[in-house]
Amino acid sequence: MAQYNSVTPELIEKFKAIAGSRVATGEDINPDFARDEMPIYGTRLPDVSIDVMSTEEVSAIMKICNENKIPVTVRGAGTGLVGACVPIAGGVLLNTAKMKKILSYDLENFVVTVQPGVLLNELAEDSLKKGYMYPPDPGEKFACLGGNVSTNAGGMRAVKYGATRDYVRAMTVVLPTGEIVKFGATVSKTSSGYSLLNLMIGSEGTLGVITELTLKLIPAPVATVSLVIPFADLDTCIATVPKILQNHLKPQALEFMERKIVISSEEFLGKAVFPRSFNGEDVGAYILCTFDSDNRDELDPIIEKAADIVLEAGAMDVLVADTPDKIRDAWAARSSFLEGIEEQTKLLDECDVVVPVTEIANFLHYVNTLEAESGFKVQSFGHAGDGNLHIYTCSNDMELDVFKAHVATFMEKVYAKATELGGQISGEHGIGMGKIDYLSKSLGPVNMRLMEGVKNVFDPNMILNPGKVCYKM
Amino acid sequence: MAQYNSVTPELIEKFKAIAGSRVATGEDINPDFARDEMPIYGTRLPDVSIDVMSTEEVSAIMKICNENKIPVTVRGAGTGLVGACVPIAGGVLLNTAKMKKILSYDLENFVVTVQPGVLLNELAEDSLKKGYMYPPDPGEKFACLGGNVSTNAGGMRAVKYGATRDYVRAMTVVLPTGEIVKFGATVSKTSSGYSLLNLMIGSEGTLGVITELTLKLIPAPVATVSLVIPFADLDTCIATVPKILQNHLKPQALEFMERKIVISSEEFLGKAVFPRSFNGEDVGAYILCTFDSDNRDELDPIIEKAADIVLEAGAMDVLVADTPDKIRDAWAARSSFLEGIEEQTKLLDECDVVVPVTEIANFLHYVNTLEAESGFKVQSFGHAGDGNLHIYTCSNDMELDVFKAHVATFMEKVYAKATELGGQISGEHGIGMGKIDYLSKSLGPVNMRLMEGVKNVFDPNMILNPGKVCYKM
Repeated sequence: MAQYNSVTPELIEKFKAIAGSRVATGEDINPDFARDEMPIYGTRLPDVSIDVMSTEEVSAIMKICNENKIPVTVRGAGTGLVGACVPIAGGVLLNTAKMKKILSYDLENFVVTVQPGVLLNELAEDSLKKGYMYPPDPGEKFACLGGNVSTNAGGMRAVKYGATRDYVRAMTVVLPTGEIVKFGATVSKTSSGYSLLNLMIGSEGTLGVITELTLKLIPAPVATVSLVIPFADLDTCIATVPKILQNHLKPQALEFMERKIVISSEEFLGKAVFPRSFNGEDVGAYILCTFDSDNRDELDPIIEKAADIVLEAGAMDVLVADTPDKIRDAWAARSSFLEGIEEQTKLLDECDVVVPVTEIANFLHYVNTLEAESGFKVQSFGHAGDGNLHIYTCSNDMELDVFKAHVATFMEKVYAKATELGGQISGEHGIGMGKIDYLSKSLGPVNMRLMEGVKNVFDPNMILNPGKVCYKM
Repeated sequence: MAQYNSVTPELIEKFKAIAGSRVATGEDINPDFARDEMPIYGTRLPDVSIDVMSTEEVSAIMKICNENKIPVTVRGAGTGLVGACVPIAGGVLLNTAKMKKILSYDLENFVVTVQPGVLLNELAEDSLKKGYMYPPDPGEKFACLGGNVSTNAGGMRAVKYGATRDYVRAMTVVLPTGEIVKFGATVSKTSSGYSLLNLMIGSEGTLGVITELTLKLIPAPVATVSLVIPFADLDTCIATVPKILQNHLKPQALEFMERKIVISSEEFLGKAVFPRSFNGEDVGAYILCTFDSDNRDELDPIIEKAADIVLEAGAMDVLVADTPDKIRDAWAARSSFLEGIEEQTKLLDECDVVVPVTEIANFLHYVNTLEAESGFKVQSFGHAGDGNLHIYTCSNDMELDVFKAHVATFMEKVYAKATELGGQISGEHGIGMGKIDYLSKSLGPVNMRLMEGVKNVFDPNMILNPGKVCYKM
């Protein structure tokens, strides 16, 4: 177990010599810096926060902290869901949210270079103006790109375009020692030693501080259309997913949702778009999918083929959203799931397991049986195309301790089931401090030993983001 | 520096208790086991070779070797080009080439599980019969999949479909300690701790022994067409590449070749397909590209658009190969480059740098200026779509020592130039024992220290494949 030192007034003076008035202590520290979007895992303010502005500043600060064994935690927009940016050991918080420049485009090589604090939606909009798309599309559009890379964020379009990992070409990293390194290059393939680039992706700020990113772009598709497909029950709905994928249809997004979460979300929005029944029969589940193309004319045969396939597979109907307004309405309910849940819920926890696509229905039936005995409400939705499920446990009347204990029992079973079905603990949210025990149980002690060993190679004094991913405090 | 012990008769008896008659010593060892396809980096026979057949056997053998500090090297088909499978420290050679079962398909989840000794072309043919494609397509079709994963092999189709890394979902690995672990899962996205899966990919048999692989498949495209596009000079040829990629054309393969290598390859084949001149002007360079589609009708507008773009960009002509025979002929010359060079050459070395696509012409002009002063012949070709270049140094009349010295001078300059242009040492062949110094110069001491640290975490006694990638003996 690493021993840390306290931040002394002398060290604060040293930080001020580097970052001036961007160093804050005591009551000047932004209270948001104590938490992310899932405070149930614990909150704590840092002893010092520093709004860093450059690679060199980060390097100078890390050198001081490493020499003095001061814990350091990096924070972007704070939109995480597993407590990864919470400075639970105190010490220094590096706020990279102000490093928000889009530095340069190199469109002949299909890359853009950005600082880590650029928001996902800022890059998406800016690159679209140039005719390019940054494909990763997590539900949270106001996350920093540094955070997206640190969690290997996935999102709606992963089924066609892959996760963030597939769009990171290179990065500049400040190691916990303060050394500045570059991983990767503006090339699309490489076999040049161990992929330290891929090790950094998804490491949740525990191995180094990302200070610059070179990301891949693709020419933006020219047309999209969405389909809302109601089914009588979840099994038929989920069994349809492989059929869509096997028939060359390549949806850009392929989401499923159960009846109850759609109703709850539409109540939150005050607008109903999804049909609740068909020919007198209740709708039990929906697929919402989007197809894109470089050519508008190619979409019509795709829609026809998709309609044939899903109706053959037992869909009740197919609703086509082919104008920007209709597409926006169809996705509004999906996009508001978390917001709706948050507004309606006092106590909230969640998991985002990923299972093989064919096991989604199996898994959800199991979750639904657990709900009855849990004492709280369970809300589920997810990415049908890639088996990534978001399961929210919600209570408005339990005591915090009781809720936490019940959730722990529930989560233990849920993660064990996901592991048994060949899945993994997190599809896109990460491990942070909230999920270490579940990760450990799922992967086993040898995997965890390797991860902690890797952590130690990058961070010999274990000062960077202690208590996260594989290293419990 | 690790100290190794010799293989004693007692240890050989222990190996025989595990693998019986599949243990060979002395003259019974296959002489091929001393080398791969590029023997210029050095050759050596192991003290013992063992044809392993299962994960459990590999585990039992690794435990013995780890306890006794016996070096172990893993070999598949031996088609590597950087000496990665040469047992330069002697000891035990594990031959995984006989673990060649395709274990199971799970087509609803788009994966196949194989043993590491299955050959690339075996999987490609077998999955195609089921209507699926395994996209990675390195020039060497008789490589083992275990080797492909260990080098993150790229190949012709990487420009559209990515490299091997993008198709590995999970693997079973025996660590140097003999422990058996599983990395990854049958899921397309995950954020569940450090990606040890991605660390294994491209690690060239230095971190663990791959004994099972779960690989991603995609529905096979239904139609392909190839274009041969002659240009007066290399600059115009290379400058055309981004224009093809930016215009939504998504070629499956996009190769360039200079005049001299086409002529040399066609002489080797005894068949000329590529036009040598157009309207009385010599052709200086060619693009050879293939487009695929899930719908034959969609290919015609793609070909028309491609033709418009390349002619506008300065192509001399566009030749369409739209029947299987014509496509095969067009690719025969490309596929025979290495074979042709090998047949015509006594002393051979090569590099496979990768540079940003826009720097290909720049880089090749530099290489061509070096040829004049080198005293040997230089032959180049490569993947225009991803900047991965294969540069062969060939001599029939130099003494070995002189050749090696001249090549060393040449390679040093070539790798320095690639690094200066933002490239990397290897696009797909790897580092092995032939390229460690160049990797070290290109990445710098901090990157190398991290890699050696990671190696040490996986392999505390440094017994697995010593002298490769990041760990010099």
